Amino acid sequence: MITLASDFPSPYPAAMRGVICARSDARIEDVAHDFPRQDVRAAAFWLREVLPYFPPATHCVVVDPGVGTDRSALVVEAGDHAIVAPDNGVAIPVARELVSGDGDSEAGAGSGGGADDDFDVWEIDYDDAATASNTFHGRDVFAPAAADAHDEGGPAALDRCHRTDEWVDLTFPEPDMVAEGARGEVLVVDGFGNVITNVPGDPIEGCEGIRVDDELIPVRDAYAARDPGDRLVTVGSHGNVELAVNQGRGDEAFDLSAGDDVLLEW
Amino acid sequence: MITLASDFPSPYPAAMRGVICARSDARIEDVAHDFPRQDVRAAAFWLREVLPYFPPATHCVVVDPGVGTDRSALVVEAGDHAIVAPDNGVAIPVARELVSGDGDSEAGAGSGGGADDDFDVWEIDYDDAATASNTFHGRDVFAPAAADAHDEGGPAALDRCHRTDEWVDLTFPEPDMVAEGARGEVLVVDGFGNVITNVPGDPIEGCEGIRVDDELIPVRDAYAARDPGDRLVTVGSHGNVELAVNQGRGDEAFDLSAGDDVLLEW
Amino acid sequence: MITLASDFPSPYPAAMRGVICARSDARIEDVAHDFPRQDVRAAAFWLREVLPYFPPATHCVVVDPGVGTDRSALVVEAGDHAIVAPDNGVAIPVARELVSGDGDSEAGAGSGGGADDDFDVWEIDYDDAATASNTFHGRDVFAPAAADAHDEGGPAALDRCHRTDEWVDLTFPEPDMVAEGARGEVLVVDGFGNVITNVPGDPIEGCEGIRVDDELIPVRDAYAARDPGDRLVTVGSHGNVELAVNQGRGDEAFDLSAGDDVLLEW
Repeated sequence: MITLASDFPSPYPAAMRGVICARSDARIEDVAHDFPRQDVRAAAFWLREVLPYFPPATHCVVVDPGVGTDRSALVVEAGDHAIVAPDNGVAIPVARELVSGDGDSEAGAGSGGGADDDFDVWEIDYDDAATASNTFHGRDVFAPAAADAHDEGGPAALDRCHRTDEWVDLTFPEPDMVAEGARGEVLVVDGFGNVITNVPGDPIEGCEGIRVDDELIPVRDAYAARDPGDRLVTVGSHGNVELAVNQGRGDEAFDLSAGDDVLLEW
Repeated sequence: MITLASDFPSPYPAAMRGVICARSDARIEDVAHDFPRQDVRAAAFWLREVLPYFPPATHCVVVDPGVGTDRSALVVEAGDHAIVAPDNGVAIPVARELVSGDGDSEAGAGSGGGADDDFDVWEIDYDDAATASNTFHGRDVFAPAAADAHDEGGPAALDRCHRTDEWVDLTFPEPDMVAEGARGEVLVVDGFGNVITNVPGDPIEGCEGIRVDDELIPVRDAYAARDPGDRLVTVGSHGNVELAVNQGRGDEAFDLSAGDDVLLEW
Repeated sequence: MITLASDFPSPYPAAMRGVICARSDARIEDVAHDFPRQDVRAAAFWLREVLPYFPPATHCVVVDPGVGTDRSALVVEAGDHAIVAPDNGVAIPVARELVSGDGDSEAGAGSGGGADDDFDVWEIDYDDAATASNTFHGRDVFAPAAADAHDEGGPAALDRCHRTDEWVDLTFPEPDMVAEGARGEVLVVDGFGNVITNVPGDPIEGCEGIRVDDELIPVRDAYAARDPGDRLVTVGSHGNVELAVNQGRGDEAFDLSAGDDVLLEW
């Protein structure tokens, strides 16, 4: 199975799908093609949340603000999964999650994780300027590599891949845990408007309410435990503290966007 | 085959897709993931329109404003189809349609249809709080149940399912047919902006025009029978009276939204 | 394999998918369902760009402002591909591309290409008013024809298809090449906001910059060769001159939309 994830508007993902189908009989499943445009950290977050639910697969990921520069193209082997992606860190948190169940690990900060990480990184040689456009490596580099890595059993079987210890790391910011609270950050806002922070949910289990930027907000297990339009704090399906509105948008009600700081006190 | 329908923004449907692929080799086809948010009636309408075109399948439907409350999770067996869905009525009109070709039937109004309906309703036991998140039953309850029901040949084979006669019904409002007209209601507005009413199309067949809220509007067989930008009344592909604009948005031109009353006179 | 392309909002494509699945075991892959509404030229452009990447397949294309009028329904056989589409020209540029690699050919201008073109055109007889709705031929005419043409090995095997030499042609406007420049036209704007012109990219290869409507703009190989928010000219993955903004929208920065004239001087 090959999965596809990108920030490409239609019909660009279909060109990738065509390239894969022309090279491989692999089943194709979409992860998302509407990741926030060129937002590597948001894509890395969602991949870490979603890909581990799939059976072993080759995941083709293209969120690639550096397309056409000299950034490398990678195949990251993590457990029974392979992630084909640009070398901008987008594949790293999910790779850590797949091998250790700990995508938040700070191992390997900086460029290159090496011995601390249990996944293998391969670089794809695509310097054939005759075949790769400078603006659409999803179609011309990543999709063919994903199809071939899938069909041949991994990057080791591909002449155009070689092992590397040099790659761009990406870790999510850690919250600053303080006495009875945390200074955290908004990692992403989902399509419902739910505000997903980097603060782990454990400390607020059992709380009736917590202060969010100095305002007391009820903590609830489920959106529907509040009236429609009312705000709540919950532990989202990702395990982090989430700020939400039942049947409404938390980002608007809390006036928070990805990257904003948020102070939680319990 | 398993179909997926939800009101989930990307990438949440992919988590469901991963869960299903990890448990089953079933082919997966998407119905929609942009049903109007938490609008159970609109989803029920569209499912009734679309699912009967599929061959026998297990349909996993998650439009679920009550997620995390004590609402039940169901598998509705209707003919050769099974619909896995929350117990909020979303699966009932299509179940009636599948067994009788009459999704508008008023049988079984109120809670529980029982003997009047020819479909069987099973409740999914998911009270294992250790495995189900309170905010994402699509991933944690419905997708696994759909995969298992598909692979095992139906809910009867699943230990965690038991028959029930208690379930939430949903029927669409009936129009008030009056002499030479009908007081109806807008059921849904589609993505083109076409206004789909609950008034059956038969009475206007052959009319040159009808009055819509006191304005005379031409009745036409096809959108293109009017100039671009001009309003028309037609019988939509669902068989009901539809208010439209050729190459434009009927909802804006008629100033009508889902739930609005509309008076049609012919 | 059957591919699906349309300008239909969800869940209408799912009805087509259901119809196909009920008649055929063919794998289904989506091309796009968000082509600009009823914009036949834009769809024809994108199909020409994307479908050639697929292996031989039956492509079901429904961008159909004339639905319900007397426009014909076609199956265009081009090489090992078949394109099932309304007779409005949407399938013609990609058919030329598939047989000759030259989708811009001016052969066959006007109605009917005949001997100049190496593809075959078949008309689908669907005059059974009892089974075809007037507003949703995607579901009632094109999807069944695509499923049957796929399963039977092409339109020749279908009783309801007959060869025709009468069909609507569509060619893209040619740029007016002048000394050291071109008067061109914007063909389409993609979902990133990139402005795709009809001017071939060859003449600007090697230029440092060109004048776009009298303003000098740098020519670059890649979006990321400019700072975020800065404008550039590039040769897009389609081979034409493209006006873009790194991590921004070219259409807004250049104030250009599909159909606008643009003067390029190098």
